[in-house]
Amino acid sequence: MSAADTTAGLGARGRLGAWIESPGPRNFIIALIVINAIVLGLETSSGVMDAIGPELEALNAAILGVFVVEITIKLIAFGPRFFRSGWNVFDFLVVGIALVPDSGPLDILRSLRVLRVLRLVSQVKRLRDIVESVMRALPGLGWTALLLALVFYVFGVMGAELFGDAFPQWFGGLGATLFSLFQVMTLESWSSGIARIVMETYGWAWLYFVSFILIASFMVLNLFIAIIVSATQSLHADEEEAGRQELLDELREIRRRLDELGADRERETTQ
Amino acid sequence: MSAADTTAGLGARGRLGAWIESPGPRNFIIALIVINAIVLGLETSSGVMDAIGPELEALNAAILGVFVVEITIKLIAFGPRFFRSGWNVFDFLVVGIALVPDSGPLDILRSLRVLRVLRLVSQVKRLRDIVESVMRALPGLGWTALLLALVFYVFGVMGAELFGDAFPQWFGGLGATLFSLFQVMTLESWSSGIARIVMETYGWAWLYFVSFILIASFMVLNLFIAIIVSATQSLHADEEEAGRQELLDELREIRRRLDELGADRERETTQ
Amino acid sequence: MSAADTTAGLGARGRLGAWIESPGPRNFIIALIVINAIVLGLETSSGVMDAIGPELEALNAAILGVFVVEITIKLIAFGPRFFRSGWNVFDFLVVGIALVPDSGPLDILRSLRVLRVLRLVSQVKRLRDIVESVMRALPGLGWTALLLALVFYVFGVMGAELFGDAFPQWFGGLGATLFSLFQVMTLESWSSGIARIVMETYGWAWLYFVSFILIASFMVLNLFIAIIVSATQSLHADEEEAGRQELLDELREIRRRLDELGADRERETTQ
Amino acid sequence: MSAADTTAGLGARGRLGAWIESPGPRNFIIALIVINAIVLGLETSSGVMDAIGPELEALNAAILGVFVVEITIKLIAFGPRFFRSGWNVFDFLVVGIALVPDSGPLDILRSLRVLRVLRLVSQVKRLRDIVESVMRALPGLGWTALLLALVFYVFGVMGAELFGDAFPQWFGGLGATLFSLFQVMTLESWSSGIARIVMETYGWAWLYFVSFILIASFMVLNLFIAIIVSATQSLHADEEEAGRQELLDELREIRRRLDELGADRERETTQ
Repeated sequence: MSAADTTAGLGARGRLGAWIESPGPRNFIIALIVINAIVLGLETSSGVMDAIGPELEALNAAILGVFVVEITIKLIAFGPRFFRSGWNVFDFLVVGIALVPDSGPLDILRSLRVLRVLRLVSQVKRLRDIVESVMRALPGLGWTALLLALVFYVFGVMGAELFGDAFPQWFGGLGATLFSLFQVMTLESWSSGIARIVMETYGWAWLYFVSFILIASFMVLNLFIAIIVSATQSLHADEEEAGRQELLDELREIRRRLDELGADRERETTQ
Repeated sequence: MSAADTTAGLGARGRLGAWIESPGPRNFIIALIVINAIVLGLETSSGVMDAIGPELEALNAAILGVFVVEITIKLIAFGPRFFRSGWNVFDFLVVGIALVPDSGPLDILRSLRVLRVLRLVSQVKRLRDIVESVMRALPGLGWTALLLALVFYVFGVMGAELFGDAFPQWFGGLGATLFSLFQVMTLESWSSGIARIVMETYGWAWLYFVSFILIASFMVLNLFIAIIVSATQSLHADEEEAGRQELLDELREIRRRLDELGADRERETTQ
Repeated sequence: MSAADTTAGLGARGRLGAWIESPGPRNFIIALIVINAIVLGLETSSGVMDAIGPELEALNAAILGVFVVEITIKLIAFGPRFFRSGWNVFDFLVVGIALVPDSGPLDILRSLRVLRVLRLVSQVKRLRDIVESVMRALPGLGWTALLLALVFYVFGVMGAELFGDAFPQWFGGLGATLFSLFQVMTLESWSSGIARIVMETYGWAWLYFVSFILIASFMVLNLFIAIIVSATQSLHADEEEAGRQELLDELREIRRRLDELGADRERETTQ
Repeated sequence: MSAADTTAGLGARGRLGAWIESPGPRNFIIALIVINAIVLGLETSSGVMDAIGPELEALNAAILGVFVVEITIKLIAFGPRFFRSGWNVFDFLVVGIALVPDSGPLDILRSLRVLRVLRLVSQVKRLRDIVESVMRALPGLGWTALLLALVFYVFGVMGAELFGDAFPQWFGGLGATLFSLFQVMTLESWSSGIARIVMETYGWAWLYFVSFILIASFMVLNLFIAIIVSATQSLHADEEEAGRQELLDELREIRRRLDELGADRERETTQ
C-alpha cells in the first residue's frame, strides 16, 4: 500500500507487488474466498453433489488456481520478505495444503480445504485486527495458563493412578484422564456421568472432583479476569491519559505565565 | 406529546395524533395488553378452556379490535410518518399477524398471537429504553460476531465432511452440524453425549471438539467483553468527564486571573 | 446501642432494650444459633437420632424457648417500633414458624425450622451488610428482570401451544413450560434431553430453542452487567471522588493566593 | 539473594544459604522438578512401566534424594527461620510425604507423590506471584463465602429432611445432600437428572431447586464480582494514583512559585 506511492522508483517487481495489494485484486480475492466458502458448504450436501458435483469441483479447482497464482505473484514481488508477515505464512500454508496429493487419510486432507475460508480473516482488515488484538493478549496469559496446565497435569497423574484400574474408560492413561478433566472443567456430566459412579467404588472421590472443579474454575476465572483487564485497561487508559494530558497542558501553561510574571518582576526590580 | 402543545395550529389529524399518544389512551392500551397477556396465558390451560373458552376468545377478539382501531387512528393521524419509527412497524406487524386468515399451519399462527404481549415493550418507555440500548450495542459486535460465524462455518463444513457418514444424527449435513456445534458451544452433553461416542470411531476427534470449545469460548468471551466494555464505558466516561470538566473550569479561571495580573502589570509599567 | 448512652433518662423498657442489644446477650444468642445449626444438622443423621434423638430435641426446644424469650423482650422494649426493621420481622417469622402446631404436612413445617439458622445473618453485622447491599442492587434490576419475565412468558405461552399436545411432560401447561424454559436457560440437557427429541416431531423447533437461548442469555448478561456496574461503580466513584477533591482543594488554594496577590496589587496601586 | 552480598560477614551457614538460593542450584532444582514431572507422567502408562519401569523408579528415587539434600541444606542454613515462609513449609511437606513408609492405602500415598510437581510453583517467582495474589484475595471473600456456606447448610438440612427418605441416593444424609447441592449449583443434570424425578413424587419440589439455583448463583456472582473488583482495583488505582500524583506535583510547584511571588512583593513593599 505505502509501496504504491513510490512505484515510480521501483522495478517491475515493485509494481507487481503494488498492484496485487491494490483494492481491485484484493476485493476480487475476497469475493473468490466467499464464493469458495459457499461452494465448500454446498459440497457437504449429498443431494447437491449428486446434481452438480463435478461442476462444483471444477469451480473449486479454478478458485484454487487463482489463489496459487496470487500467492506466486506475491512471492515474486516481495521475495523472502513475504514470509515475514505471519498472515502471509498462513495464506501460504492454507493454499499449499490443497496441493498435497490425496494419498493417506483422504477425508482429513479434504476437510482441511475449508481452512481456506479463514483467508477471509487475513484479507479483511477489521477481522485481522480482532485476531491480532486477541493474539497480543495471549502472552500476558502465559503464566496463568502454565499454572492451569500444572493443575491439570497434577490432577491428571493422580487421577490415572487412583482410578485408572477401575475406570479405564475415563482414567486409563494420562491422555484419557486429561480429556476427562477437561470435560469435568466444562462441568458436563461431571457428577451424574463420572463422579457419582466413581464414588460408588471410592467413597472419598468427591474430594478429588470437588477440589479440581474449585481450583480449575478459580484458575479459569483468573484467566478471564486477565483478559478482561487487558482488554478494558488499554482502552480506558488511553482515554484517561488524554484527559489527564489536557489538564497537564493547562497547568504547564499556567506555570509558564507565572514564570513570565516572575521574570517581569525581576527585570523590573533590577532596573 | 410535543405535538400536544401546538394542537391549536394543527388540523383534526394532528389533534387525533396528540390524543392517541396522551397518557389516558396510552395507559388504557397498556392495561389491555396486560389483560390480553393474562387471557392468552389462561388459554394454555385445557381446564380453563373447557370452562370459559368461548368467553376468553371473545375477550381476545375484542381486545384485538381495540388494537386495530388504535393503529388505524395512528395511521390516519401520522400518515406515512407512522412507519418511520421501528416500534410502530413492530406494533403494526404484531397486530396484523392476527388478521391473517387461519389457513395453513394453524398452531404456529395461533402461537404467534402471543407476540402481541411484546407490545408492552413498545408502549412502556423504560422497557423500550433497555431494548434500544441493547440494539445500539449490536452494531459494535458485528465484526466479532462475523468472526464467530466464520469459526462455526469452518468447523461446520469440517464436521460434516469428517463425521457425516458415521454419525448422521449429529453431523448429517451442514445444518445438523451447525446445530450440534451450537450444542457443543453451550457445553451441553458435548462429551458424554457426542465427543466420547465419536472418539470410539475416530480416536483423534478430541482435537476437533476441544479446539472448537476453546476457540468458540474465547470468541464468546470477546463478545461479552465488547458488550460489558460498551455498557460500562459510556456510563463511566460521562461521570469522569464531568469531574474533569470541573477541574478544567477551575484551571481556566486561574489562568484568567493570571492574565489579568499580567495585563495590570503591563498597564502599570507602560504608564 | 446508641440507646445505651441515654438509659438514665429512660424507663425500665428503655433499659431492657439497651440490655438485650448489648454485646453480652447478643453474643449469647449468636452462640445459641450456631449450636442450634449443629443440632439441626445432627438430626438429619438417623444414626445420631437413634442414639441421642430425644436429647437433641430437648436442646432444640430449650434454644427455641430462649429465642422466644429474646423476641418477647424486644417486643416489650421497643413496642411497635420493633416491626419497623425488616430484620426484626424476619426474626419474628422464623421463630414464630416453630410455634405453629404440627398439624398438616409435618415434613415441610419441620424442615422450615432450619430457617432459624439464617438468624445468624440478622445478628452478625458483616453478613447483614452483604445481604443489604445485595437487596439495594435489586430495585435497579427491576426493569431488566421484567423484560426477562416477559420473554419467559411469551416463549412459555408459545411453547405450551406448539408442543403441549405432543410433549406434555415438558410443555403440558404454562407452569410446566416455564420450568422447562428455566432448565433450557441453565443449558441443562436442553439439546440432548429436550430439543433434539422435540425436533424429531417438529423439524423447525431448533428455531424456538436457539432463539430462546440467545435472547435469554443476552438478558441474563444484561442483568449481570447491571449488577457488576452498580457494584463496582459506587466503590470506584468514591475513591476517584476523593482524589479529585484533593486536586480541587489545591486549585482553590492557588486561586485564593492569586486573589490575595491581586488585592495586594490593587491596594498598592490605589495608595 | 540479598544475603549473597554480605556473605563475607557470615559464617559457613550463611554462605551455604546464599549458595543454595543462587541461580545455579535453583535452576538445577527447577530442571529436576520438570524431569520428575515427566517421569511421573510416564509412570501412568503401563506400556512404559513394563519396558523401563525399574529405571524410572530409580530416577524418581534419585531426584527425591536430591530434593531431600536440598531441603536439609536449607534447614541447616536457615534454622528455624526456614519454616517462617509458607512456601518452605509446602516444600517440606511435599517432599516429606514421599518418605513415609508405604503402609496403609498404597495407591493414595503413591498418587500424592505427584504433588512434588507443584514445587515448580514455589521455585518459579512468576508462578508464586500469581498464587500469592490469589491467596491475598481470599480473606476479602471470607464473609461472602460464609454466607454461601450458610445457604448450602440451610438448603442441605432442608433437602435431607424433605427428600431423604424417598431419594437416599441424592439426599440420604447431610453429606450426600451437600454434594447434590454442589452438583445442582454447577447446573449439571440438575433438572433432567434430579429435580424432575423428585418432582414426580413432590410436585412442589421445583420451588426448592429453582430458589436454590437463583440464590446460589447470585452468591457466586457476588463472589466473582468481589474477586474481579479486588483484582482490577488495585491495579487500576495504582495507575490512576500515579497520574494524579503528577498533577498534584505540578500544582504544588505552581503554589511554590506563587508563594515566591507573594514573598518578593512583600519584601518589595516593606523595603
